[in-house]
Amino acid sequence: MTDANDTAQRCLAGVRVLDLTQFEAGPSCTEVLAWLGAEVVKVENPNGGDPGRMTPGATADRAAPYFLLFNANKKSVTINLKAPRGLQIVKDMASRADVFVENFAPGAIERLGLGYDVVRELNPRIIYAQVKGFGEGSPYQNNLAFDMIAQACGGVMSITGDPDGPPAKPGATLGDTGTGMLLVISILAALFRRKDTGLGERLDVAMQDAMLHYIRVAFSVTARNGRPAPRAGAKVLTGGNAPSGIYPCAPGGANDFVYVYTSRTNPAHWHRVLRVIGREDLIGDPRFEEITARVENEAEVDEMIANWTRQRDKSEAMRLLGEAGIPAGAVRDTKELQEDPDFLRRGVMQVVHHPTNGPFTMPGWPVRHNGGSLPLEPAPLLGQHNSEVLEQWLGMNAAQVATLQEEGVF
Amino acid sequence: MTDANDTAQRCLAGVRVLDLTQFEAGPSCTEVLAWLGAEVVKVENPNGGDPGRMTPGATADRAAPYFLLFNANKKSVTINLKAPRGLQIVKDMASRADVFVENFAPGAIERLGLGYDVVRELNPRIIYAQVKGFGEGSPYQNNLAFDMIAQACGGVMSITGDPDGPPAKPGATLGDTGTGMLLVISILAALFRRKDTGLGERLDVAMQDAMLHYIRVAFSVTARNGRPAPRAGAKVLTGGNAPSGIYPCAPGGANDFVYVYTSRTNPAHWHRVLRVIGREDLIGDPRFEEITARVENEAEVDEMIANWTRQRDKSEAMRLLGEAGIPAGAVRDTKELQEDPDFLRRGVMQVVHHPTNGPFTMPGWPVRHNGGSLPLEPAPLLGQHNSEVLEQWLGMNAAQVATLQEEGVF
Repeated sequence: MTDANDTAQRCLAGVRVLDLTQFEAGPSCTEVLAWLGAEVVKVENPNGGDPGRMTPGATADRAAPYFLLFNANKKSVTINLKAPRGLQIVKDMASRADVFVENFAPGAIERLGLGYDVVRELNPRIIYAQVKGFGEGSPYQNNLAFDMIAQACGGVMSITGDPDGPPAKPGATLGDTGTGMLLVISILAALFRRKDTGLGERLDVAMQDAMLHYIRVAFSVTARNGRPAPRAGAKVLTGGNAPSGIYPCAPGGANDFVYVYTSRTNPAHWHRVLRVIGREDLIGDPRFEEITARVENEAEVDEMIANWTRQRDKSEAMRLLGEAGIPAGAVRDTKELQEDPDFLRRGVMQVVHHPTNGPFTMPGWPVRHNGGSLPLEPAPLLGQHNSEVLEQWLGMNAAQVATLQEEGVF
Repeated sequence: MTDANDTAQRCLAGVRVLDLTQFEAGPSCTEVLAWLGAEVVKVENPNGGDPGRMTPGATADRAAPYFLLFNANKKSVTINLKAPRGLQIVKDMASRADVFVENFAPGAIERLGLGYDVVRELNPRIIYAQVKGFGEGSPYQNNLAFDMIAQACGGVMSITGDPDGPPAKPGATLGDTGTGMLLVISILAALFRRKDTGLGERLDVAMQDAMLHYIRVAFSVTARNGRPAPRAGAKVLTGGNAPSGIYPCAPGGANDFVYVYTSRTNPAHWHRVLRVIGREDLIGDPRFEEITARVENEAEVDEMIANWTRQRDKSEAMRLLGEAGIPAGAVRDTKELQEDPDFLRRGVMQVVHHPTNGPFTMPGWPVRHNGGSLPLEPAPLLGQHNSEVLEQWLGMNAAQVATLQEEGVF
C-alpha cells in the first residue's frame, strides 16, 4: 500500500463540518468528507451518543463494528442539546462551520432549534445538508424511514430476487450509504461554488428519491415495454443475453459460484467461452452462434458451462476465464474479502488501531488519489475531542471546558 | 416542482470535462458533473459512438433509453481517435480541460496515446480520472469487468438472495453507477483542492473495490462472528430483530408487499404495530414484549402481521402503519414509480424533450439544491456539438471544421 502524497490526502484541508448525524446515511456522508481531509466534528448526546454505537457487538469497553465502519477519521464532542448552554455552543460552532449535516427524523432538527432558518441567520455561508426518508412535499414526508424502507419504496426490492419468488432486499445498504454518497457530491459541488461566490445553500435528499438513481437500467426496461422491470435472480434484468449468470463451482458451498458474462457488443466472447470449456466443436454451430439462438437454447448453454465450472473451484474458474478475455468473476463472501491479502496490500482494506477495540480491519475510501489510498484513522471515543474542539473552534480554555463539564453541558 | 436558483444550478459553472467514457460506470459519473453545471463533452467515435447508444430499444432514429438515462446534459463530439489529426484535436482539448474521465478496458487509453503521462505533460492542472474493473496491482488488473462481475467479486451477491438459494444480483447497478458516484466525489474534492493549489492529480477506482464501500454492514457481521455474512431474503442480514421484513398485501401481485420494520433502539415501535393491527391485547405479553422473545417467536409475529396486511393493498397498509409512527414502506415497481404523479410534481422525475425520441420521462439528480431540482437536458445526438465545441474550445472557424469533417476526422 502506497500513501497518496500529502496534498492529495488533504483535498478538503481547512473545511469544518458540524456533524449531527447518526446510524448510517448521514455518518457515511460525513465520513467521506473526513477521509478527504475535512475536520468533521460529530456532536453526540452525552448519554450514549450516536445509537449506532450501541448496535450488536458493542460492550461496555468495545465499540460496535458498525460504528467503527461509518465514523472513521471523525472527532467526537458530547453536547447536551436540550440544555440552553449546550444549544448555544452548537450555534457558536455552526457560526464557524463550513458544512452542517443532519439526518434526524422529520421535524426534529427544527424542534431542537437548529433548523435552516436559524443556522443561516448565524452563518449565511454555511452549506446545510439533510437526509430524510421521503422528500419534502411527498405524501410520506413525515414518515420514518430506514434503509430497507427506502429500498422497498424506491423500487430496488421489486427488481431483486428470484423471478418466481418474493422481492428481496439487496445486502448492500443502498438506502443508507447509497443516499449518503449522493449528498457528499452535492456538498462538494456547493463548497466548490462557494469558493467564488461566498454563498451557502441548503441541500436535502430523500432516501426514496435517491434509490431511483441506482436503478435506472430497470427504468430503461420499463421505458421500452411499459411494464414493471422483473426480478432476474443472478441474471441481468434486461434479459435477452446468454450466457450470463452464475455457474456452480467445486466444492459446492453457499458461495461457490462464478459469474460468466458475454457482452452483447462483442461476439468474440462466446467463442472464447467455447475454447475455455473445451467445446471448440460448437464454434459456428447455428444453435448457439448468434445471441438470439443462445437465448433460445439458454438451458443448454448454461448446462455446458456448468459442466465445466463444477469441476473447478471458483478462483480457478475465474482465472481461466478471465485470462481468456471473458468477463468473469468468482462470487466472494465477506470473510474471503475481509481476509484477502490483496486488499490489505493495496490498502483497500486497512488496519486501524482503536484504543479499546485494538486492531480492526476495515475498508477505507476506495478511490486512489495519485495511486495511493487515503489515510484511515479509527472512529472516536464518545466525547474524545471535547477539549480540543472547544478550544480550537471557540477559543475556550481548559478551565471553561471543565466548568461546562461540571454543569452537565457535556 | 421548483427550479433551484441560478447560482445553485451552476455549482460547477466554468468546469470543462473531457469525457471518454461509455456504457455506465463512466457516463454515470460525468452525467452528474453535467447536472451540477460542468460543460461535459463526450468524445465518441464517428462510427456509432458510445456502444450504450446501441443497447435494446435503439432504432435508426430513436436513441436507446439506456443512453438517454446516463448521458443527459452532455455535449457530443465525434472524433476518430485512430486518425493522427483526431488524436491531436483531443490532446488540444485535454490542454484546455479541467477534468478527463475514461473507463476503457485496461490498457486501452495508453494504447490510444492518451495515458496519464501524456495528458499530464500537456496539462499539469488536469484531474485525470479512471474506472477499471479491478485495481492496479490486483491479480485481476487486466481482466474485463462489467457491473455483474463487480457485484460478484465485490461481495454484493453473496449477501443478496434467499437464505436457502443461490446468490442473487441486486437489480440496482451498484457495480456501475455505485462506482461512478464514488469517482464523482474524488473528482470534486480534487477540483476543490486545485482552486488553491493549482495542482491536478490522477484518480482511479476499481469496481470491485468500490463494492466494499456499500456492504459495510455485512462486514460488521463478519467482524463480530468471523463468518461470512449470510443472505437474508427480504430481511436484514444482521438478524436478531422482529418484526422486520415484507408482508403480503391484497391483491397478491408480484410486488404487492409492504415492508414493516421496528427499530432495535425504539421499543415503542412494537406497541404501535400491535395497535394498528388490532392486537392491543398482546401489549405486555411476555411471548412478544422483548425483542429477543419476538425473534424466538418470529413465525408467529410475522403471521399476525400478515393476517392484517393481506386484507389491505400495499398503499393503504403503508399509510396506516406510517401514520402510526412505524417505519413502513410499500414495495414499488418501476412502472408505479415511473408514473407516480408525486415524483413528477416534485421534479424527481422530469420530462425531457429529445429531438428524435420526443418526450422522455427520467429521474434527474435527486438531491435538492435550495429546495429545487437541477435542470435536466436530453442526451445529445451523436456529434451534435462538433462545431460548437471545436469553435469554443479550440477557436476553430466553420471552414476549418468543415475541412476536418471532409477528411474523416469527425
